[in-house]
Amino acid sequence: MLITLHQKTGPKELALLQCLLSSHGVGHCVSTTATQTVVGLESALEKSLLEEIQCLACVERVITTTTPYKLASRAFKKEKTVINVNGVEIGGQRIILMAGPCAIESREQLRSIAQEMKKSKVGVLRGSAYKPRTSPYSFQGMGEEGLKIHQEIQKEHGMLIETEVMDVRDIELVEDHVDILRIGARNMQNFNLLKEVGKCKKPVILKRGISATIEEWLMSAEYLMAHGNHQVILCERGIRTFETATRSTLDLSSVALVKHLSHLPVIVDPSHAAGRKDIIPALSKAAIAAGADGLLIEVHNQPAHAKCDGKQALLPEELHALSCELEDLARSMGRSL
Amino acid sequence: MLITLHQKTGPKELALLQCLLSSHGVGHCVSTTATQTVVGLESALEKSLLEEIQCLACVERVITTTTPYKLASRAFKKEKTVINVNGVEIGGQRIILMAGPCAIESREQLRSIAQEMKKSKVGVLRGSAYKPRTSPYSFQGMGEEGLKIHQEIQKEHGMLIETEVMDVRDIELVEDHVDILRIGARNMQNFNLLKEVGKCKKPVILKRGISATIEEWLMSAEYLMAHGNHQVILCERGIRTFETATRSTLDLSSVALVKHLSHLPVIVDPSHAAGRKDIIPALSKAAIAAGADGLLIEVHNQPAHAKCDGKQALLPEELHALSCELEDLARSMGRSL
Amino acid sequence: MLITLHQKTGPKELALLQCLLSSHGVGHCVSTTATQTVVGLESALEKSLLEEIQCLACVERVITTTTPYKLASRAFKKEKTVINVNGVEIGGQRIILMAGPCAIESREQLRSIAQEMKKSKVGVLRGSAYKPRTSPYSFQGMGEEGLKIHQEIQKEHGMLIETEVMDVRDIELVEDHVDILRIGARNMQNFNLLKEVGKCKKPVILKRGISATIEEWLMSAEYLMAHGNHQVILCERGIRTFETATRSTLDLSSVALVKHLSHLPVIVDPSHAAGRKDIIPALSKAAIAAGADGLLIEVHNQPAHAKCDGKQALLPEELHALSCELEDLARSMGRSL
Amino acid sequence: MLITLHQKTGPKELALLQCLLSSHGVGHCVSTTATQTVVGLESALEKSLLEEIQCLACVERVITTTTPYKLASRAFKKEKTVINVNGVEIGGQRIILMAGPCAIESREQLRSIAQEMKKSKVGVLRGSAYKPRTSPYSFQGMGEEGLKIHQEIQKEHGMLIETEVMDVRDIELVEDHVDILRIGARNMQNFNLLKEVGKCKKPVILKRGISATIEEWLMSAEYLMAHGNHQVILCERGIRTFETATRSTLDLSSVALVKHLSHLPVIVDPSHAAGRKDIIPALSKAAIAAGADGLLIEVHNQPAHAKCDGKQALLPEELHALSCELEDLARSMGRSL
Repeated sequence: MLITLHQKTGPKELALLQCLLSSHGVGHCVSTTATQTVVGLESALEKSLLEEIQCLACVERVITTTTPYKLASRAFKKEKTVINVNGVEIGGQRIILMAGPCAIESREQLRSIAQEMKKSKVGVLRGSAYKPRTSPYSFQGMGEEGLKIHQEIQKEHGMLIETEVMDVRDIELVEDHVDILRIGARNMQNFNLLKEVGKCKKPVILKRGISATIEEWLMSAEYLMAHGNHQVILCERGIRTFETATRSTLDLSSVALVKHLSHLPVIVDPSHAAGRKDIIPALSKAAIAAGADGLLIEVHNQPAHAKCDGKQALLPEELHALSCELEDLARSMGRSL
Repeated sequence: MLITLHQKTGPKELALLQCLLSSHGVGHCVSTTATQTVVGLESALEKSLLEEIQCLACVERVITTTTPYKLASRAFKKEKTVINVNGVEIGGQRIILMAGPCAIESREQLRSIAQEMKKSKVGVLRGSAYKPRTSPYSFQGMGEEGLKIHQEIQKEHGMLIETEVMDVRDIELVEDHVDILRIGARNMQNFNLLKEVGKCKKPVILKRGISATIEEWLMSAEYLMAHGNHQVILCERGIRTFETATRSTLDLSSVALVKHLSHLPVIVDPSHAAGRKDIIPALSKAAIAAGADGLLIEVHNQPAHAKCDGKQALLPEELHALSCELEDLARSMGRSL
Repeated sequence: MLITLHQKTGPKELALLQCLLSSHGVGHCVSTTATQTVVGLESALEKSLLEEIQCLACVERVITTTTPYKLASRAFKKEKTVINVNGVEIGGQRIILMAGPCAIESREQLRSIAQEMKKSKVGVLRGSAYKPRTSPYSFQGMGEEGLKIHQEIQKEHGMLIETEVMDVRDIELVEDHVDILRIGARNMQNFNLLKEVGKCKKPVILKRGISATIEEWLMSAEYLMAHGNHQVILCERGIRTFETATRSTLDLSSVALVKHLSHLPVIVDPSHAAGRKDIIPALSKAAIAAGADGLLIEVHNQPAHAKCDGKQALLPEELHALSCELEDLARSMGRSL
Repeated sequence: MLITLHQKTGPKELALLQCLLSSHGVGHCVSTTATQTVVGLESALEKSLLEEIQCLACVERVITTTTPYKLASRAFKKEKTVINVNGVEIGGQRIILMAGPCAIESREQLRSIAQEMKKSKVGVLRGSAYKPRTSPYSFQGMGEEGLKIHQEIQKEHGMLIETEVMDVRDIELVEDHVDILRIGARNMQNFNLLKEVGKCKKPVILKRGISATIEEWLMSAEYLMAHGNHQVILCERGIRTFETATRSTLDLSSVALVKHLSHLPVIVDPSHAAGRKDIIPALSKAAIAAGADGLLIEVHNQPAHAKCDGKQALLPEELHALSCELEDLARSMGRSL
């Protein structure tokens, strides 16, 4: 269940409502955005308590949901969410292309790739300054220096930029430097990170964990929303299965299903799913056909020398060719690139 | 390795070659089709034996392969295989639509559905007379009577028909009644069934097992081919993962990969993968975008009363709507429906 | 639901009961053993039909079950099933050791291994004459000749023997030669094979499919039982997961659970699960501790030259050492070896 | 590769070595414990660089490893690691029993459970003050207050205590209150958390992620060790598979394998693996038989009212009965409880 409050509800009235819920043992969380305050409840209210609450002056509406996620559900919001980032719409009619290197390695590398990306209808330049690596001995990312380079390139080229945030202690810094935050697959259930990013004012890409069910994925979106950030972009990136020909198994059913279950935009990362570049064009097309609102693709100008994941990176010219093919496909689906 | 033989090779020369291979402990299998005889070898030959064999008069060519599947590989055949079934091409420029009920339940049911299918560009009418069911107490299919009904409807409507064969003892009967045989997911590694169907003259749809790797799937195709049937249509139908929102997880990476690895046509069954009808249109489009040569979709005129899998069956009118959408999509990919 | 019939029920009365069920659309199967006739029903009966049936003279008892498997459930039979094979009990107080080579390769090989096995408390000599192989080019087993060798060795050494049956056409021959039939993991849902083996008089080992749920596994046991063979020995052999360090992931929870859910004996095959010999002793002990009634272990006298699965075979002396360790463990659990 | 340094190596010499490695692009990490300084290298050194380094005065030994984990491998340390926590040995001859409630809910609850645990040979009282919950609306743990209660009970009963740490910002507080830190399955690849806990002086239990391979699990142990904490206790708790009868699939092969690959102690959590209490005794016995050094079991005095995971909690008397059975089993394996 969800309780939406009237806009002018004061802190005292809210505190009273929370007291009432707590005294009945109802787990809840207050989600406050610029325009709305909603209280999400763990479970449905008993009839008498429900009636009592509906009589409170601050209560606007009580919304019944049958799913464990509330704010992320279509029951809370029927129309699809379109997120506007400095004029670029994500989740709208246009399909958004996000591309760039796995890791930011140097100013020259990022600049060179960014120049190419501009020519291929790329709206958001990807790049990680903090890298979650399986080995403690591997390159861990450029950190703050990488963020600065990213911001510089953004200013030079006028593209939006996105980057991963892995640590609660880095959030402020990351939010200061980029347009869109990204929570990686390994952190999808790092709940304290979700809570803190939930307090950010900037949109966040939430990658699906490699062993997360669709419901768990939406529950993690719910964490972000319950703590105040409703600008969530879901990102399917493949799940772990027995198949070893690909790094993960891209699950496009999840894209189709999430479109039914939730109002949030969904993008697809075919690069991490495949772990090999030969099938990225096919998977990108399939993702769009399945209803994805965008793609997140790894591109590198010198894949053989990439500090990580070079095997799955497209060359800038390969991305360019793909973007042309995607344009035709998008058009046939009544969308554009 | 593969050894292709000259067309006029006699049985004696072949026997001699086999003797030579066996005496060196090289596992092999002779694949004879109307136009060609090829001997597939378990492993690469040692240099001296290779030279000896290359000198034999009957030997046309020795083909080196790096994959465990030989006849199914692109190394054996560079150009894609197009299977012609009474004038209908599978694996060609046109995308083939196969649709119909899960099980043949009665003459009236199949006739009614077939009439509708004709209107929706369906080229092959699906329907099973033999049903592999998890429970011994569930409806096991109409058997021979179902095959007869299927054939009758075929004659009335002039469509191709396909059906599942589950038992080596039924192969002859099934081949007499239908145009295309189907080997179900549960039988993908029923090797004796593969060997016997390998001797059939009619094309065969080979479904991927729910826990089969792509390589194992191609190895099962190899069984069919090694025993003489080169008209193999691969069918992706989802793999078993931890996700429970769908019956299986449709793996479209497999479609893209198989197109690189093999020359055989690939179709997709979104119905069994999803196990629910709401996402079948999205998955169908994604399959085509990923490069599939066709679709195998379950349709029922009264899903609520279907004897099996009603939940995943489209209504005839829903299939019709989908086929229109697919036409646009196919066109954008340079194909037609 | 299950209907048990009085022992002297004639074919006419049975036919009448079946008619009654069919006319109400109730799927069912008659399971007749030497001592009992039971009718398994797909679903629970409606009240009025239930009352009508309970009044029939031939009906002894109607047993309600909440699980889809009926005859395999504890609801049908509370006490555990002990299968007596020529004096050797499977499922009783004693833990049964089954061991031998993966494939029967020659008389000398099998004889040599059998001699060693006798010294290590092995009660059943394993060995396959028919081999399901991923590649059509690999050794497919010695077939009938292998069965004959197996039987010869049995006579020489007085051990029980077991072997795999893969094809409905081989059942009679196999049943003539061995004491216990085995249905392999790949054939766990080869329903026609299950039906035919269900008519055999000899016990059958039913391996769990690599992607079968515990419920599906018990449903396949149900097929065997519903067709008349109640001497089913379940065999856990690992399931397919993302982990690649082992060939499959041995699921000992299944052993513990099946002991609650079913009355049938359960054994464990650590060799196919692990696919490597180093952890077979540890897994064998864990299996016994989890409650398994026996073990099925691959042993080879020359693993490096084995025609299949040599990597996972123990040497005879390694099995001997293991059997000593197992004896202590069994004793601590109130059992013996 | 690993480089061990002489004990008296000064900061300057170390800095020089690091410089040398960095200038050759070799990723590395310095692991300093009270008694030893080791430098772990991402990859093997080239011959000339290796020779140069071997000549440095500070270098004691260069250890070659074939695994991506270095400090966690048997190559680094042949004898098994025994961790001494205030006199209690983990990884030694005695099997350690850790038990207690999933979450700390109140002083009364924890005290009552702790009293019972003392009677059952429990050496470590488990309990979480911080709870990672799938839903933002669920009970998130008592936080600091829970830690204080935990410490109080520890003083009253003289048991060791362990608790989960989820957030880098809580580490200091947690380390001040408990004897053993625990990193949960969801945080197994929260690398920044690993780095910070790597700086702690207290032992840490590292749970295997539900979709982590054994190698990835050991790589996470490597993170802890590379940052200075060599007191790592691995904990198998089940992996995510297609099977739904249990919450996860307990993978006891991992226990057997890790014993070969690593010198670190391994314990097993059957409670989270099973997600149901009926098979916990069987799984506990299987774990010990597979070679585990201890168990981590959930116990609750009022499971029906537990704030989380009540379904999988044993009653104190059930744990008592189990501990008696485990004693016999341990003895048969040459160990004690």
